[in-house]
Amino acid sequence: MPHPIITFTTDFGEGSPYVAQMKAVALSMNPELTLIDITHAIRPQDIRHGAIVLADTARRFPPGTVHVCVVDPGVGTERKIVYARFGVQQFIAPDNGLLSLVERQQPADELICLDAPEYWRPEVSATFHGRDIMASVAAHVTLGVESRQLGARHAGLTQIAWPEVDCQERSLRGSVVLVDGFGNLITNIMRDTLPRDVPRADMRVACGTHVCRDLVATYGDASPGDTIALFGSSDRLEIAVTNGNAAQTLGCATGDTVEVTW
Amino acid sequence: MPHPIITFTTDFGEGSPYVAQMKAVALSMNPELTLIDITHAIRPQDIRHGAIVLADTARRFPPGTVHVCVVDPGVGTERKIVYARFGVQQFIAPDNGLLSLVERQQPADELICLDAPEYWRPEVSATFHGRDIMASVAAHVTLGVESRQLGARHAGLTQIAWPEVDCQERSLRGSVVLVDGFGNLITNIMRDTLPRDVPRADMRVACGTHVCRDLVATYGDASPGDTIALFGSSDRLEIAVTNGNAAQTLGCATGDTVEVTW
Amino acid sequence: MPHPIITFTTDFGEGSPYVAQMKAVALSMNPELTLIDITHAIRPQDIRHGAIVLADTARRFPPGTVHVCVVDPGVGTERKIVYARFGVQQFIAPDNGLLSLVERQQPADELICLDAPEYWRPEVSATFHGRDIMASVAAHVTLGVESRQLGARHAGLTQIAWPEVDCQERSLRGSVVLVDGFGNLITNIMRDTLPRDVPRADMRVACGTHVCRDLVATYGDASPGDTIALFGSSDRLEIAVTNGNAAQTLGCATGDTVEVTW
Repeated sequence: MPHPIITFTTDFGEGSPYVAQMKAVALSMNPELTLIDITHAIRPQDIRHGAIVLADTARRFPPGTVHVCVVDPGVGTERKIVYARFGVQQFIAPDNGLLSLVERQQPADELICLDAPEYWRPEVSATFHGRDIMASVAAHVTLGVESRQLGARHAGLTQIAWPEVDCQERSLRGSVVLVDGFGNLITNIMRDTLPRDVPRADMRVACGTHVCRDLVATYGDASPGDTIALFGSSDRLEIAVTNGNAAQTLGCATGDTVEVTW
Repeated sequence: MPHPIITFTTDFGEGSPYVAQMKAVALSMNPELTLIDITHAIRPQDIRHGAIVLADTARRFPPGTVHVCVVDPGVGTERKIVYARFGVQQFIAPDNGLLSLVERQQPADELICLDAPEYWRPEVSATFHGRDIMASVAAHVTLGVESRQLGARHAGLTQIAWPEVDCQERSLRGSVVLVDGFGNLITNIMRDTLPRDVPRADMRVACGTHVCRDLVATYGDASPGDTIALFGSSDRLEIAVTNGNAAQTLGCATGDTVEVTW
Repeated sequence: MPHPIITFTTDFGEGSPYVAQMKAVALSMNPELTLIDITHAIRPQDIRHGAIVLADTARRFPPGTVHVCVVDPGVGTERKIVYARFGVQQFIAPDNGLLSLVERQQPADELICLDAPEYWRPEVSATFHGRDIMASVAAHVTLGVESRQLGARHAGLTQIAWPEVDCQERSLRGSVVLVDGFGNLITNIMRDTLPRDVPRADMRVACGTHVCRDLVATYGDASPGDTIALFGSSDRLEIAVTNGNAAQTLGCATGDTVEVTW
């Protein structure tokens, strides 16, 4: 690999110098790296938030990318850190549920518990395994260290409770799982969950007490200020206010119920 | 080009994982890329804000840089996406006025409407043309695809209404067009708009009801806390509070009138 | 050096396009660069904040890295800009105290005053020496220009007043010097300042009127919600609320007193 890629997804906050410390460790070992920030704005210790961002983003990277994922409220406890490979994407993360939504998309092809300290930094702090273990191991992987050298096989990933979509004959009920930077309400209702034989125009979408004007194909089908529902760029049902901010306008947030009836 | 550069300017918000999705698409096609964020803090759907940032920033990049600009309230409508070349700088942006201030500095040398889908991602979402069209086409350009292959000639760029400077015999009146991270009030009054034969010391600058102490050459000419006017790093007249925050101190914002009299 | 690294630490604010202007200047001169953001969230004109971030972060980068540091309230005054080398790390910064904590860790091996304009941009603005002098000189350094070509020897770095740790026979008193993105209160009390012969369990840590439950080795030794003290990833005593935000919970901030007694 001429230009191996490591991505970083953390809850350190945008502008945190802790991110640069991880990059410094990785570059010290492999100066050829391309380093990409997915986000550092995961809400502190919010594993679900990290899990959905990884599920929607990581799979878009080139084969062989190593994704370093640090939402790690259990740092310094007995929780394990794992290497996980799902097809062509590789992840290094605490085993706390952070990868559980990626695993729903595709079963893991390899799971290794990072227990071989020769691939860690020589001194491991009590509070920053993202730097001292994860960034270091990620750089080793990009240098050709094979996954089985990193530690013993890991039995299975920790799962987190996740809001499920409740499908009925003429309706389904999901929930908002993410609010993006535009205030769009992004749900756990995927495009292929809706019945294909019902015309979109016959579907009614509601978030709490707010009824969307329509289930539209694109913003161009609505007027500015309309509350609409549409399938977004990761095939999730989204509720948006055209050229506005749905979260603010509707007063909705992560966890709110979204119902589709037909 | 051994290390082609793509820059990104969006209104996605700092920390938005949507930015990483665009980078993932570009790197999947060209792993040699150098990727630079100009900003993702353009106010949502604020084309003017994006336009002024591009006008002050893009021209500083090396020849051949491709600037991907995504402030796109019309995604999913009939608005076009264009490739535009101004001298040695290349842009890919919706044709909604986002490039109209760049064009005021220098006429476009090439304008192409991106209507050749072979350079897009195979599946184009309804809401994220920044990823599915713009990042993909940008990567193709860095790989040597010629602009005329990207689509048909585009007739002309959409203009946006822009506050003009009103020049009188002994005064001129402009406005604040940007507030930077220090709270400096940055105007549309350029250095070469002021008469050269009038000494600076004879000029009086006012923003709303606030009169600046002086039109100074540099911060060193003032004391901490002084409200001053000076020409900033992009040759725009700026109003600043030395070692302070002018926007907060004066209660001024984008759109406020600035008057110079002599 | 096949992939020289330049880092950037500024008070421009995350998302400021001024950062991209510095990168554009550097890339225009050396397209091989790896550019890393340490942070742009230094509080405006807060030299102490910049100094502590540099002291904890810069030393982790590979040998030869050039750190461009722009917290520069004196831009346009008589303050000097310097090149400073501390062992294998190189810095370019205004001589205003920004490097004074790095210097406490290790004396400077070289100090040069950047007064050779042939390594600056041809036109230097009055307000943005980070772009017009510092980024330009940094790129020259990565291209092999030797430090003695950059200007004359600089006599010594400006120091800033810095809160000292007051050590008594059975106690010591320091202060909070940084609050990180998790709300952890990071102090100026280093690990090796505490007596080695006193068991940790016999030490009592207090921040203002708040007494920590324990001086623990790691978060795993506490329960969620506990207020604890521990040595963090830069060997500084930190006060944290496990899986919470100590700054918010305790109402503490930079400057507050922290006392250890035994």
